[in-house]
Amino acid sequence: MHDAEKALKSLGMRILQPIIDETFPTLKIPDRKTNNIVFDDTINQYVLGPSLSVRDSSNVKHVRSFTQLTWAAAFAKELIQASRTSSLRDLYYSAEAFGINFNNQSESDRIVTDLECLTGLPRESLGIYPEEHSSIYGKVKMRYTVSGYEGIKIDLTVSPDGLPIGPALMTAEPIDSEAKIVLAVESGGMFSRLIETRAWDRFSAVLVQLGGQPPRATRRLMRNLHTSLELPVYIFTDGDPWGMHIAKVITSGSANAAHIKNLTIPSAEWIGVTPEDITEYALPTESMNNADLKRLDELSRDVRYNDPVWQSHIHGFKQMRSKAEQQAFSRHGMDYVVDTYLSDKLL
Amino acid sequence: MHDAEKALKSLGMRILQPIIDETFPTLKIPDRKTNNIVFDDTINQYVLGPSLSVRDSSNVKHVRSFTQLTWAAAFAKELIQASRTSSLRDLYYSAEAFGINFNNQSESDRIVTDLECLTGLPRESLGIYPEEHSSIYGKVKMRYTVSGYEGIKIDLTVSPDGLPIGPALMTAEPIDSEAKIVLAVESGGMFSRLIETRAWDRFSAVLVQLGGQPPRATRRLMRNLHTSLELPVYIFTDGDPWGMHIAKVITSGSANAAHIKNLTIPSAEWIGVTPEDITEYALPTESMNNADLKRLDELSRDVRYNDPVWQSHIHGFKQMRSKAEQQAFSRHGMDYVVDTYLSDKLL
Repeated sequence: MHDAEKALKSLGMRILQPIIDETFPTLKIPDRKTNNIVFDDTINQYVLGPSLSVRDSSNVKHVRSFTQLTWAAAFAKELIQASRTSSLRDLYYSAEAFGINFNNQSESDRIVTDLECLTGLPRESLGIYPEEHSSIYGKVKMRYTVSGYEGIKIDLTVSPDGLPIGPALMTAEPIDSEAKIVLAVESGGMFSRLIETRAWDRFSAVLVQLGGQPPRATRRLMRNLHTSLELPVYIFTDGDPWGMHIAKVITSGSANAAHIKNLTIPSAEWIGVTPEDITEYALPTESMNNADLKRLDELSRDVRYNDPVWQSHIHGFKQMRSKAEQQAFSRHGMDYVVDTYLSDKLL
Repeated sequence: MHDAEKALKSLGMRILQPIIDETFPTLKIPDRKTNNIVFDDTINQYVLGPSLSVRDSSNVKHVRSFTQLTWAAAFAKELIQASRTSSLRDLYYSAEAFGINFNNQSESDRIVTDLECLTGLPRESLGIYPEEHSSIYGKVKMRYTVSGYEGIKIDLTVSPDGLPIGPALMTAEPIDSEAKIVLAVESGGMFSRLIETRAWDRFSAVLVQLGGQPPRATRRLMRNLHTSLELPVYIFTDGDPWGMHIAKVITSGSANAAHIKNLTIPSAEWIGVTPEDITEYALPTESMNNADLKRLDELSRDVRYNDPVWQSHIHGFKQMRSKAEQQAFSRHGMDYVVDTYLSDKLL
């Protein structure tokens, strides 16, 4: 049986057994309040502390969320058994068919997070996905496991526009790689440029387009390539606090996903654009606005940035009070980012 | 020689010849002001009227934009000759390498539009793309023309997550299809659902995910499938003025793209969600907000909606004052949208 099916069955038994024994079922859910989210230095990521919140079906105030949660688990079981997936939006609308009421999608999203906490599984394992995708391209072969494509292999260079990291690719197994590294980039423009200049060949890289803070499915696939194929991971973002933080969430996770295991890549390396790069490569800059400066202050106090190297990046940005996009290398010509910058960083 | 190269060469000669003849070159650009954008009933789309604006290189006030335009044309020529592409963002940054100044990307985007008007070619033909992509999936074979992939065929069912409509796919040639129709849907969630329920097989459809108002590359590819393979086009969007207008722009174009030819699909059909569908299929609705109602008023006066059928849709929404997403069919169960709604509309 599928891991997710086992987890759901075990959850079902925790609800059914008390009913058989003629008592009210209760569920203990790891608490996601701020004071129960702690940074674990040994694994370098946020985790949930020991505090649990109780959903008691004998308590009238708990009946609504208890029912919603039970329905969401049943819905996930159906998805898995039918080898189907659902967007979070679809799940919200599907509830009506069963007489389950959610006030809005935020409420149903929260219940899905409860289900993740209870089962210890990310919603993707339960067939539930957000709508957005990022993309991937490179010399890696993967084997699909989704219905209708079981066992079919795909080479991730098949489409010169890249492949979306959707439910099928996320659950595929990496089987073989000629690539030596994973190179994740923030923007779609940079991703396209690295494909068409054959930078993937030159740096033996699997390219991943993050598109800002990437969906969890993308982080999971990168981690899978890192662990199964032993590919080191490099991250290339805009030179500003937001770009830097994209890299940080990949290495050290986020408080929002503190209940999800096996998502971070502690050894992943942010190659820039660092404040030093902005000076060294004479990049055109923009002045930081108040939101940028405020964000730098927040990050300087963030436990994930304790390391002196990261503190020095923050310090550098604060001194400079300016920022540069990864596209800014184009000022030196179309191929400069590959021939000079990435060659300096990766070779 | 490539059409785009020819157009750029001819533009170059219009600038060079006067210089050889020792006069100042001038360029006449079709005027994009509102009063020069007219709706052409015979082809059912917006086109530019006869008014031209002149850029005169002997006029100091015109020198800046004349130079920017000349540079953009030279940049496009380089892209084409090197079989490369550039995002609009990259073009903006690339200008600095040549001592060409743009105040911001809006200014460089405008110059690219000037270049489109002058050459009569969409920027995509010049290798210049926006960053966003939509996706496609279905039983169609296409042959790539981009560098490194020339002549390679791809089956658009190769990736069960769909394929992004990027520069490579947009310039590929449709060679063969088992599909009988193009079915374009607004949301990524619906696109995924129609793939995994094999609705593409059942309706013999090539599925296109629009993702809101689609990039022009997507409209162009749909039109290409429509004309080369004679596939009729159906559009399935949210039941609100915004969804309806996605369909309308596909059939009749937009004022913004009045200077671009061969982009509309006049025979494409909006299958819903119509106001009647909301009632007939008992969909859960939300109340329209002020922006929705204002938009309906605008559309009711829009020349593209003159047709009585479209006016009756607008009237229906105004009466109802409520709207429904395409995901709303999930209230009747996961398969309802395929088994009932789309079957009613397409079979």
